[in-house]
Amino acid sequence: MLCSIFSFAQESIIGFSKESAEKQIELESKFEAKLKTTNLDEWMQKLAARPHWVGTEFGKENVDWIANKFKSWGYKTKIKEYQILFPYPKVRLLEMTAPEVYKAKLEAKAVEGDPYTSQADELLPSYNAFSTDGDVEAELVFVNYGVPKDYEELEKLGIDVKGKIVIAKYYGSWRGIKPKLAAEKGAIGCIIYSDPKDDGYYRGDVYPKGAFKNKTGVQRGSVMDMPTYPGDVLTPGYAATKNAERLDRSEAKTITKIPVLPISYEDAQPLLEALEGKNAPESWRGALPITYKIGPGPAKVHLKLDFDWKLVPTYNVIATLKGDEFPDEWVLRGNHHDAWVHGANDPISGLVALMEEARAVGELAKNGNKPKRSIVYCAWDAEEPGLIGSTEWVEDHIKELQEKAVIYINTDGNGRGFLNVGGSHSLEGMVAQVAKVVEDPQTKVSVSERSLARKVLNGGENSFELYALGSGSDYTPFIQHAGIPSLNLGFGGENAGGEYHTIYDTYPHYKRFKDPKFEYGAALANTAGRITLRFANAEVLPMKFQPWFKTIKDYVQEIHTNLDEMRKETKQHNHLVENNIYDLTADPTKEIIIPKKKEMVPFVDFSALQNALTNLEATIDEFSTIKLEDLNDNKKEELNAILQKTEQQFITEEGLPRRPWFKHQLYAPGFYTGYGVKTLPGIREALEQRNWEEAEQQMTILAKTLNDFNEYLQNAISKIES
Amino acid sequence: MLCSIFSFAQESIIGFSKESAEKQIELESKFEAKLKTTNLDEWMQKLAARPHWVGTEFGKENVDWIANKFKSWGYKTKIKEYQILFPYPKVRLLEMTAPEVYKAKLEAKAVEGDPYTSQADELLPSYNAFSTDGDVEAELVFVNYGVPKDYEELEKLGIDVKGKIVIAKYYGSWRGIKPKLAAEKGAIGCIIYSDPKDDGYYRGDVYPKGAFKNKTGVQRGSVMDMPTYPGDVLTPGYAATKNAERLDRSEAKTITKIPVLPISYEDAQPLLEALEGKNAPESWRGALPITYKIGPGPAKVHLKLDFDWKLVPTYNVIATLKGDEFPDEWVLRGNHHDAWVHGANDPISGLVALMEEARAVGELAKNGNKPKRSIVYCAWDAEEPGLIGSTEWVEDHIKELQEKAVIYINTDGNGRGFLNVGGSHSLEGMVAQVAKVVEDPQTKVSVSERSLARKVLNGGENSFELYALGSGSDYTPFIQHAGIPSLNLGFGGENAGGEYHTIYDTYPHYKRFKDPKFEYGAALANTAGRITLRFANAEVLPMKFQPWFKTIKDYVQEIHTNLDEMRKETKQHNHLVENNIYDLTADPTKEIIIPKKKEMVPFVDFSALQNALTNLEATIDEFSTIKLEDLNDNKKEELNAILQKTEQQFITEEGLPRRPWFKHQLYAPGFYTGYGVKTLPGIREALEQRNWEEAEQQMTILAKTLNDFNEYLQNAISKIES
Repeated sequence: MLCSIFSFAQESIIGFSKESAEKQIELESKFEAKLKTTNLDEWMQKLAARPHWVGTEFGKENVDWIANKFKSWGYKTKIKEYQILFPYPKVRLLEMTAPEVYKAKLEAKAVEGDPYTSQADELLPSYNAFSTDGDVEAELVFVNYGVPKDYEELEKLGIDVKGKIVIAKYYGSWRGIKPKLAAEKGAIGCIIYSDPKDDGYYRGDVYPKGAFKNKTGVQRGSVMDMPTYPGDVLTPGYAATKNAERLDRSEAKTITKIPVLPISYEDAQPLLEALEGKNAPESWRGALPITYKIGPGPAKVHLKLDFDWKLVPTYNVIATLKGDEFPDEWVLRGNHHDAWVHGANDPISGLVALMEEARAVGELAKNGNKPKRSIVYCAWDAEEPGLIGSTEWVEDHIKELQEKAVIYINTDGNGRGFLNVGGSHSLEGMVAQVAKVVEDPQTKVSVSERSLARKVLNGGENSFELYALGSGSDYTPFIQHAGIPSLNLGFGGENAGGEYHTIYDTYPHYKRFKDPKFEYGAALANTAGRITLRFANAEVLPMKFQPWFKTIKDYVQEIHTNLDEMRKETKQHNHLVENNIYDLTADPTKEIIIPKKKEMVPFVDFSALQNALTNLEATIDEFSTIKLEDLNDNKKEELNAILQKTEQQFITEEGLPRRPWFKHQLYAPGFYTGYGVKTLPGIREALEQRNWEEAEQQMTILAKTLNDFNEYLQNAISKIES
Repeated sequence: MLCSIFSFAQESIIGFSKESAEKQIELESKFEAKLKTTNLDEWMQKLAARPHWVGTEFGKENVDWIANKFKSWGYKTKIKEYQILFPYPKVRLLEMTAPEVYKAKLEAKAVEGDPYTSQADELLPSYNAFSTDGDVEAELVFVNYGVPKDYEELEKLGIDVKGKIVIAKYYGSWRGIKPKLAAEKGAIGCIIYSDPKDDGYYRGDVYPKGAFKNKTGVQRGSVMDMPTYPGDVLTPGYAATKNAERLDRSEAKTITKIPVLPISYEDAQPLLEALEGKNAPESWRGALPITYKIGPGPAKVHLKLDFDWKLVPTYNVIATLKGDEFPDEWVLRGNHHDAWVHGANDPISGLVALMEEARAVGELAKNGNKPKRSIVYCAWDAEEPGLIGSTEWVEDHIKELQEKAVIYINTDGNGRGFLNVGGSHSLEGMVAQVAKVVEDPQTKVSVSERSLARKVLNGGENSFELYALGSGSDYTPFIQHAGIPSLNLGFGGENAGGEYHTIYDTYPHYKRFKDPKFEYGAALANTAGRITLRFANAEVLPMKFQPWFKTIKDYVQEIHTNLDEMRKETKQHNHLVENNIYDLTADPTKEIIIPKKKEMVPFVDFSALQNALTNLEATIDEFSTIKLEDLNDNKKEELNAILQKTEQQFITEEGLPRRPWFKHQLYAPGFYTGYGVKTLPGIREALEQRNWEEAEQQMTILAKTLNDFNEYLQNAISKIES
């Protein structure tokens, strides 16, 4: 019988025996006591003093400074360089040529009280990185957020974007989806603007009076097709080392097909105001004082973009504190350092928390508290243009990482509010325990209690849960490409603003609106640091598969329910079509395309998946009875080796349909959402696209993945039992 | 056994035997053939040529012209005069005195292409009738729509309007609720403005380019406390005849307690922009290009209003076509003639349909098709300031009406779209039959089919239903005060605009945006005319109590469900309070008042009501088996006499709590909604106010009303059976 001899389900801290847990708690208290908010404040002033996007001189200065800091704290520190393709805008022209002439200003204004916004010579012009070059002129069409359901609406309204230039609002999806879809629909250019409803005066006072976007602010950002593959566009799947074989730029699939430019709402208003045609549906309308219409035309615009495409160096700082007992087991902890402009919030607020955490961990080590496993702090370059620094590094070291990495813990911008954690669901229990011992700076309850209060207020259950990871920061190559268990942590919810990727994401803005006392920066260091230390010192890696199982089972149930819902809706839709309900209710004076009947939603065979789940549940229950106290050191090592590779069981060599770089079968960024996660992506996206055949194929693949994992765990049990 | 001998449930037309039904259908076809859209067009040009509010010269010209038309069509026509109090604005001053000075313009601009808007000398200044005089200066507070839940929100935010002047948006309730509630909360003045989100550029192009409100447009309207009593403020419950005893103005309960003024969004913007304090909740924000804040202050405003309060004559035109068989049974059909300005849509579009209907009915009579019952066409004056013309007339003739009126059929403004009918639910079956034989001008299906298609599209059932009557037009004194079965009819849904009660409600606006070919005007005449003729000629009055019963039972069920819901919400709320969820989730940097626990919602005894319903259902089933074919003329007369008084069984002498003028126990305008109906108002409003004791009292009263009605029907059955 296993149940009497194995069980690591009941320790006071997951992964530790009673005695070692006490020591660990003591260590974490010491760690917490070392954290100083003043360091965060000082370092942000240094690192966000000037613009520092990839390839800039000031960026390199930051890299050296960061590396020196790590060195001074006792870390073995390397600067790892890759050569990546990065476009710098040479020509940015947007003008309306009819019915009136308007030339877009394309320049955000410096504001009083924020000297950083006056560094005119150094500010990166506003643009979307990895837009293709182009020179197009055409009628304009307003497409709301430019996401799939907006094009469905346009179809109903009988409006085609073929040969047109579209103008889409920011938000509603990751920005790269907008030009991707527009190009698929035949548009020849794409403008993206920030509507004041989403992050301007509609939300609150604008900068410098308040935190939100003033009329001149422009959000920069990458439009690289990251849901296909992130990282250097010329070296898909392998590292962009100096002498790597590179695609020709024309072969790079992840550069947009059409030119794209982001603009302010000051520049967007004349264009939108000049549109005629049908009124935009109510949910499309923003907060500009105009009647939102769709066009096409009579507004006609000319968009000309020309980029300097060149290889630039990226510098990742990799700082290692060697483990005392298991130096070849790595706890990875990262945050990017590059910014679009000053990036006080994004990413410096997260980076300084990481650094303060590293300083404290280094000090502990110097005072005799060396970690058992190696801790590797990573400051990534070129995250903004496409997770490039981290992706190239993962691609460069994938074999070693898959052998050695036990976890990757990511942070990025941070602010006042509530703890949000996403990640591999085997880590849920461990994170929940940590969140219970970190104090919320404002309310003095634990950060867990405060987060749960919000969840309960919104009608959720009173249990700590991780959200599933999509994309949007450097965890993507770790979890979705390499199968390393990953987390993404941050505080927020009381730090709203419109500064994201603009010249207004500066130290003064951060101090006034984000985390004035850097208390939440310290709370982040405290939370991430404790997780880092737990993983570094655990006797058995703190992973739990019962919560993981529950989550995956819920996803399957959700897909099942969605399919039933889709079937019901299709039936209802067809009923309305058959009974002429759409015809009879349409206003005959408005040309509306009366919808056609849709193909019925078939019943899909879930049995293989359900059987796999049933078997897996029993095995996981058995596996969960393994008791740490009953394992000798050898067995613990064996168990750890097993646990270290569990997440890799969820990746497949073939990856997802049409995007083999994404190998994880449980979590992926949506092909048509960008950052937004799709869980069980193979099946879910096939069903959403009404591709029943592919859904059944993906069902088989996922069932196999789960059956293989079942076998993996069965073997593990036998091994540990033996 | 009754069931074998009585049943008027199966005729082809309700209220008619098979033979008489055929004749009636033929008659209605003749009637329909006579309707001419050109008359509607011509008459609108005449009646909406100049402004014609109550007391104006042009209004009197219209009255004489209308009366002469009726006379020419063979109606015995009288002009019935009352003397009512009507305030004309002498002083209208609104200025912001801090932090900057702004003087409100208070004047809508004439527009090109609409000469009516240039009749500057004749346009009624924009104001709210029955605002009290006043001269106040105070800090401003933005209160959203100024309805009860907005004040709940203000309380949570810790904002008090005591001693302040509030600014509220139009819509969200009938306008009179806004100053009423503001005064109850201690405000000393009230400004109402039209936000562009509700009927300005957010909705569509503004006048003259499109139908919506331009920045200078102002909605006029009464703020008399009509939910307490409508009609002349000095003669509550009795007619405002020349020598009637009148209250002193200071005693009139329905004049507002604080001064109120409506303004345009051009005038509102500087005031709202000058507010500071907390951001308005998202659902409060309109479409002005500002950050909506609540205040109070620093904006300070000075509001001065002075009215010329004088008695003016109102003229109702009452045109009677005497019935051939039952001259003392009256079918009443009405629409008002007074407007705030030109009133092309409100009310002339409805009035010209009524007149064309009357012309056709008169012609039929001349050609030998005299109605059995008398038909009385009414063109009411002074509807706009507070349903005054109709209310005084009903109060003047209440006894006679209760003896003779078999139905009151109301119309008002009309436009392109879908048929909407509200009214006494005993009339539902008859209206459904009529709606099936009137053709929709655009789709050529029946107006019933088109209306039902919209209902089905919105997820409703495929069955024709009447909505319950609240208030907002001249049916109110008939149904809610006198207990006359009533209907309110109109087409709409494809006629949106922002012209309501502004200088832009003109003939050119109507022709472009409302019903360009007057087809829906003709459809209204056709629908209302057929109903009129059915009631005029029916052998047995076409009323059905099984659908009525279902509706009332549903209302009881709804109240029960609402109470359960309220109990659940209260429990959940108290749970959140007890667990500090509100404290923990509140942003500590924003002063939020943490909610307190609420008194638990008790279980209320519905048994008396349920027992009454059970008995009534059986009786109604029995009553419904009465078969028209089996009744001789005497019995038919007896049955008609019984049916004529059924609606009066639902009114009580005492009326509703705190507003005895409103006597109907099933339908009333909401005390805090104004136009919006409250069904089973005694119980429903008591529960909504959490007044459990009053709810139980009202439960007893309603049970008694239903039991009395049961007895009434039982007696009727015995009488008919005998």
